Amino acid sequence: MYGQIVRDGLVNVTGIEDLGLTSPVLQRTSDAFFKEISPFLLHFGMFVPTIIGQCTPEQQAKWLPLAMDLKIIGTYAQTELGHGTFIRGLETTATYDASTEQFILKTPKLSSYKWWAGGLGKTANHCIVLAQLYTKGVCHGPHPFIVQIRDTETHMPLPGIKVGEIGPKLGFNTADNGFLGFEDFRIPRENLMMKNAQVTKDGTYVKVARHGKLTYGTMVFVRVMLVSDMAYCLAKAVTIAVRYSAVRRQSQPKPDQPEPQVLDYLTQQHKLFICISTAHAMKLTSTWLWNTFTGVLADMRDGNTDTLPELHALSSCLKAISTSDTSALIEQCRFACGGHGYMYSSNLPALYSFATATRTYEGDYTVLLLQTARFLVKSWEQMDEGKPLTPTLAYLEQSRNGSQVSWDDSPEGIVRGFDAVAAGRIGACVKSIRKHINNGMDYEDAWQMTTVQLVGAAEAHCRAVICRVYRDETARLTAGCSPGVKAVLDQLSTLYLLYWALERTGDLLRFSSLSERDIENLQARYEALLLKIRPNAVGLVDAFDFRDEVLMSTLGSYDGRVYERLMEEALKTPLNREPVSDSFHKYIKPMMQGKL
Amino acid sequence: MYGQIVRDGLVNVTGIEDLGLTSPVLQRTSDAFFKEISPFLLHFGMFVPTIIGQCTPEQQAKWLPLAMDLKIIGTYAQTELGHGTFIRGLETTATYDASTEQFILKTPKLSSYKWWAGGLGKTANHCIVLAQLYTKGVCHGPHPFIVQIRDTETHMPLPGIKVGEIGPKLGFNTADNGFLGFEDFRIPRENLMMKNAQVTKDGTYVKVARHGKLTYGTMVFVRVMLVSDMAYCLAKAVTIAVRYSAVRRQSQPKPDQPEPQVLDYLTQQHKLFICISTAHAMKLTSTWLWNTFTGVLADMRDGNTDTLPELHALSSCLKAISTSDTSALIEQCRFACGGHGYMYSSNLPALYSFATATRTYEGDYTVLLLQTARFLVKSWEQMDEGKPLTPTLAYLEQSRNGSQVSWDDSPEGIVRGFDAVAAGRIGACVKSIRKHINNGMDYEDAWQMTTVQLVGAAEAHCRAVICRVYRDETARLTAGCSPGVKAVLDQLSTLYLLYWALERTGDLLRFSSLSERDIENLQARYEALLLKIRPNAVGLVDAFDFRDEVLMSTLGSYDGRVYERLMEEALKTPLNREPVSDSFHKYIKPMMQGKL
Repeated sequence: MYGQIVRDGLVNVTGIEDLGLTSPVLQRTSDAFFKEISPFLLHFGMFVPTIIGQCTPEQQAKWLPLAMDLKIIGTYAQTELGHGTFIRGLETTATYDASTEQFILKTPKLSSYKWWAGGLGKTANHCIVLAQLYTKGVCHGPHPFIVQIRDTETHMPLPGIKVGEIGPKLGFNTADNGFLGFEDFRIPRENLMMKNAQVTKDGTYVKVARHGKLTYGTMVFVRVMLVSDMAYCLAKAVTIAVRYSAVRRQSQPKPDQPEPQVLDYLTQQHKLFICISTAHAMKLTSTWLWNTFTGVLADMRDGNTDTLPELHALSSCLKAISTSDTSALIEQCRFACGGHGYMYSSNLPALYSFATATRTYEGDYTVLLLQTARFLVKSWEQMDEGKPLTPTLAYLEQSRNGSQVSWDDSPEGIVRGFDAVAAGRIGACVKSIRKHINNGMDYEDAWQMTTVQLVGAAEAHCRAVICRVYRDETARLTAGCSPGVKAVLDQLSTLYLLYWALERTGDLLRFSSLSERDIENLQARYEALLLKIRPNAVGLVDAFDFRDEVLMSTLGSYDGRVYERLMEEALKTPLNREPVSDSFHKYIKPMMQGKL
Repeated sequence: MYGQIVRDGLVNVTGIEDLGLTSPVLQRTSDAFFKEISPFLLHFGMFVPTIIGQCTPEQQAKWLPLAMDLKIIGTYAQTELGHGTFIRGLETTATYDASTEQFILKTPKLSSYKWWAGGLGKTANHCIVLAQLYTKGVCHGPHPFIVQIRDTETHMPLPGIKVGEIGPKLGFNTADNGFLGFEDFRIPRENLMMKNAQVTKDGTYVKVARHGKLTYGTMVFVRVMLVSDMAYCLAKAVTIAVRYSAVRRQSQPKPDQPEPQVLDYLTQQHKLFICISTAHAMKLTSTWLWNTFTGVLADMRDGNTDTLPELHALSSCLKAISTSDTSALIEQCRFACGGHGYMYSSNLPALYSFATATRTYEGDYTVLLLQTARFLVKSWEQMDEGKPLTPTLAYLEQSRNGSQVSWDDSPEGIVRGFDAVAAGRIGACVKSIRKHINNGMDYEDAWQMTTVQLVGAAEAHCRAVICRVYRDETARLTAGCSPGVKAVLDQLSTLYLLYWALERTGDLLRFSSLSERDIENLQARYEALLLKIRPNAVGLVDAFDFRDEVLMSTLGSYDGRVYERLMEEALKTPLNREPVSDSFHKYIKPMMQGKL
């Protein structure tokens, strides 16, 4: 959706915000107009921003007007059949031929085919291609090139270009994802995007110096956007499930009483209310991260870039946890809607197929958590060397001696409990790595042997941050609110803390003084809190303020006409156009007559 | 797939096994022939068995030959738009009219439409309908009727019948699921399936006495089949993911060394090896349950039905946990395959959409666990009254005083740890229920307030049973095996225990003497075990012995030609039939020319 090059390209991050891409109004409007993923998404989402970010002013003058006026339609091809995460391993080559002043693009083997780019299959006629740049016999690593792939008049693939669609997927089926291969396909020298690296006519490679830290900007931005997207997706799913649960009635726990709304069952509240809390938590955390980051950017202009790695590590784990939590919770919403949640017309399957894709693209869950873990372990080691800790890791200091934090069941105390868990788990990783090294392993092998724990430690760090930020931001933002609003939002953030404390009793028992009786108390408070939230549940999802046109759900519409809409949608299915399908005459009748 | 009536119908359960429906050869053959769910599935899976189970011999003589020769095509309609789990709440009525000796079927409102029946949409011309039987002004509850819904010559819906397809779903899209409504539709009195209840010509309702316990038979059978199905699905998914992980290479943790197979990463082993173990665990548990049950059936003929409720409770939670674990682990396999797992051609999305449906149908996850919990709490109360415990609950006795079990990290000790967890959680539920009652609630409200914990207690009971059975059955079945095979299968069952012990540290810390150091040891043993299993991983999935025609996966074929197959499948997609789609001329070119 956003991608590698946006992050490498757009130096002026605040500029992106100025474009209004983060505007909730824009987001909702586009949702209402484009019911499915558009094949033009990468034209505006990647092709244009990459031209802005990676081209020289002269190149921009040539390509931007064409792209902005849609005279050409572009996409962005980086991933190959055989390589995704590991960019250095990309196999497509662009070899400079000084005699003709051209680059020769080559797909050396099947695994080198570009794969996945949205809009590439049938729509785009231009493409930014990431290829290993060779000149004078030396490889300078992956670089971006602008490549025309189809004739703009006939749309036929140009000679030497193999392009097509990659086939059906769990979701994104309107995105037109494509493959692309090159048979010694030549492009002018000038099609290397030359802002950061140039090749002169004679083939000399010239690297243009750049402030490396600046690339963090777009990377953090893209992840902030994804976390915010996930909050938005989850808010949709829980709106659907809560409204349906207020309409649906089931069973008769007490004779002579009517069937209760399923929302009155505690197990249903347990499945759904955490989704409301989580949508709030993720939205507030993404906004907080962005605000913190833009503050840091200002410092950066004064040369202070110390906290950037911390924010980058934070954005990595937040991307991983928000996409993973959201996918799981959308499925929880679907389960809460029983069989009807399985209908496409509920929109829950589509929301899931969208959210679960984000768990993989733009950095796989496990890979990103291990990136965060590198930072966490490094910070621990720096602490051991007496160096100061960055703000979000200040909690490590309290736990370095390994003693348990004393349990305190106030919300603030629970937040400190999560800090202790994160510190304890990072400490356990450091201990494990050192043990392996003492047993003769090198650092990298010791790291490898600890990766299962490291993923858990990064999750714990992320959870601690979300808990703290959600709590603090709720307090800050509701400071001027009415007591009623304040109370309800406080209930929601408390619910998040209690829910996760009960999910993490193992860690809390290890790293705090939590007792068996404390767990019983937490459980009872959690159950009581669900009942308190129940009367406001429908109001809380209504407050997300989704129009029916945006929710697109038979189960979740504002008017609650669930069964009517299910039937209306069923009647629209093409199979219902004729009372008798051709297949009856072709197959079923002959079979009934024993002729088949 | 199997359904309510199979369970109510087929009294002679051993007969079902004689039909060979549980044969793995049949299962695999049908998988290879029918790539998708068939619209005839419910004809043989529900319509025919229900005729056998619910009809008198005279009725069978009429309907069975027609059905077996496919002169008529049937399905089974129970669920309505507004009611699934709660059968008593079904709204369709069948009112007896003595003057014409007919039943009048009526769909009183929209929510009463039958919904979901497979094959009903466009295929079936007959249908077994569950409707509230009214005669002489009295409702006798839901009863099954055979109803002709379409003309067998023209296939047109009969007057008074509203029938159609329900529209697209996450999966089962070839299953032809339908809706059905009746406008005072009349059927002969004889179409009431009269084996268990009759209405005489004058409208007198006559209940035929039945041994209620016998109905447990088919219920347990259906669930055993589902648990076994889940083992089969998960085995497919992990075969795909392990083979792909042996082909796929990624990253370069050490300079100057080739990219490792992703299967060499510990995090990948962590995701996948538990899936191999779980497939074994579920297959062994389902077989064990069935064998135990048929043994009990023999006792039953001597009048001893004491252990039937225990087995029924067990089959409920095993159905819930196996479908839930399998769904989650198939997704874990998909995540482990990165972006390519998202392609339909991997077959992982289809496996998930199938498995996740089973989590809902034939008894929703939460509903079934609460059924098991009723039995667990009742057993605890009986224990408190000094009554003897059933075999699978013998562990309660050890924990009744609430003291912690002392931790023992041998496999047998870990199994006892899980017993202690189950006992502890059931005990906590009983305590919570009693507390609420002491505070003035009635029993049902106290139960409601404890349902979140009760679901957890039933899960813990189920996990303890699976752990014990998997361990015991592995030991029993490998008794005569070579030391090599024995060692590997022992590693797999130990992995299951360690994995779940680490997932349940909170419970083990609460209910056993497990210490911080014990957890560190468990973790280190788990990590070492992954490395030990690694060399046999591909062999272990090969041993599931799936033909490529059954796996139907670009990523999972035996020959490892992953990238070749991905490209071959891509080239088959209809979008690639023509190099330029019509949409170019219709939309894209005008847009590029500014004419749109």
